[in-house]
Amino acid sequence: NTYFYKQIRKDIMGLLLPPTPLITLLGAGPGDPELLTIKGLKALQSANFILYDALVNPALLDLAAPGIPRKYVGKRCGAHSYTQEAINKILVDSAKEYGHVVRLKGGDPFVFGRGGEEALAAGAAGIRVNVIPGISSALAVPALMGIPLTHRGVSRGFTVVTGTTKHQLLPKEISDAARTTTTCVILMGTRHIEAICELFREHRAADTPIALVQSGSLPEAKVTVGTITKPTPLLAAAENKVPGILVIGEVVRLREVFPHWITQMQLG
Amino acid sequence: NTYFYKQIRKDIMGLLLPPTPLITLLGAGPGDPELLTIKGLKALQSANFILYDALVNPALLDLAAPGIPRKYVGKRCGAHSYTQEAINKILVDSAKEYGHVVRLKGGDPFVFGRGGEEALAAGAAGIRVNVIPGISSALAVPALMGIPLTHRGVSRGFTVVTGTTKHQLLPKEISDAARTTTTCVILMGTRHIEAICELFREHRAADTPIALVQSGSLPEAKVTVGTITKPTPLLAAAENKVPGILVIGEVVRLREVFPHWITQMQLG
Repeated sequence: NTYFYKQIRKDIMGLLLPPTPLITLLGAGPGDPELLTIKGLKALQSANFILYDALVNPALLDLAAPGIPRKYVGKRCGAHSYTQEAINKILVDSAKEYGHVVRLKGGDPFVFGRGGEEALAAGAAGIRVNVIPGISSALAVPALMGIPLTHRGVSRGFTVVTGTTKHQLLPKEISDAARTTTTCVILMGTRHIEAICELFREHRAADTPIALVQSGSLPEAKVTVGTITKPTPLLAAAENKVPGILVIGEVVRLREVFPHWITQMQLG
Repeated sequence: NTYFYKQIRKDIMGLLLPPTPLITLLGAGPGDPELLTIKGLKALQSANFILYDALVNPALLDLAAPGIPRKYVGKRCGAHSYTQEAINKILVDSAKEYGHVVRLKGGDPFVFGRGGEEALAAGAAGIRVNVIPGISSALAVPALMGIPLTHRGVSRGFTVVTGTTKHQLLPKEISDAARTTTTCVILMGTRHIEAICELFREHRAADTPIALVQSGSLPEAKVTVGTITKPTPLLAAAENKVPGILVIGEVVRLREVFPHWITQMQLG
């Protein structure tokens, strides 16, 4: 019958024609798999190949069609460590081989996610790039712990910077941020808490609060609060080497005055 | 039978017991309804009452159970304009009356969303507060137009500030941001483009690019690029009074070198 021949025709065409390469840079969000967007879910479901990072919740991979090939290219823990150049090459090659490649990245692909570099690599190879933003940990993780980055009368803006550079030095952007009055969010800065606090003491009030949020958005989420003069509790908490986000500014105090704040986990 | 009696018992209990008040502060994302999170969708589906803003896509309201009461409390266009105090009161009263109230806000509830004030009002009334972060327009709208806020070798951080204060003056936070080297995103600043560019000319290179993105994430999205010395194209584009997001910094140039960047709309 017609259906039968149509199906055969489709199968033969599939064998003869190469797939149309497409790369979707997809933000997985801060960790909780339900913080993926509906658009992100659809992209995962239509993926022919998935390339994913260390910070991506493995539960997200189960949302893809069963049996879809996937590759871990995380830079953390594990024998293999891929350079960005190697990842770019795998991305381009797999799009040519499989068709729709979903590049699943923790948080948002463009907040220190190196999504721009991957988009350039795809463009250089003539492959179309589609971007689906993700919930950035920099904003959501403090919020989930009761720390709004902006609050009327307390903070009218925020700065997001990284705490680590290629050369393991404290980036200049941190001292620039210390000079402003906005809330400062520092990603990948847990190894430099003392140096960061020293910088902030030069420009902000001695009792300015600083918070460290670890495992943000997950059931084991933990927040530790100190001040830029007394960061001792944060130094102790950071000893477990669990990646964390630092938040510096008066908004950290709001956490104390939100008595009925509940986390997703308590909601059940 | 047992089922019948159980159902009657449940109905009677429902009439006798007041609902358990719960307020979910829910980020609706930048406009595209598919940029809502899975968690956000579930919250909408379990809502007994919805309070929503001007910047929320009406398509999201259709995701709630049919017949759920809803109230528009936007501050834009329209005869009625609610003060924040009035919104706080409606929020608390409706949670007591209906149970689970979803407070649906454009973008993220804590990025100039005044979610913190609503959480405080709920707490003062003894009502539990649950927060579900949303995709912030400040980050996602530039990304969707091919402007990553961070990019290796170009920008190692970004600042998000508002362009309008209560008194219609340019906030001090903008000149603070101009002094740094990070990408600057200004929300609600389209009425002050000239003054903003003047500020940035004092601290940054004359050819620093500035982009205005209007209707970001929607099919009618439009980006206009100029420099802080020649912002004329942006001034012309802003004449339509459509709210927009300003992005200042070298990352704006990346848009030109992403030849294969496609928008969700082109994806079809």
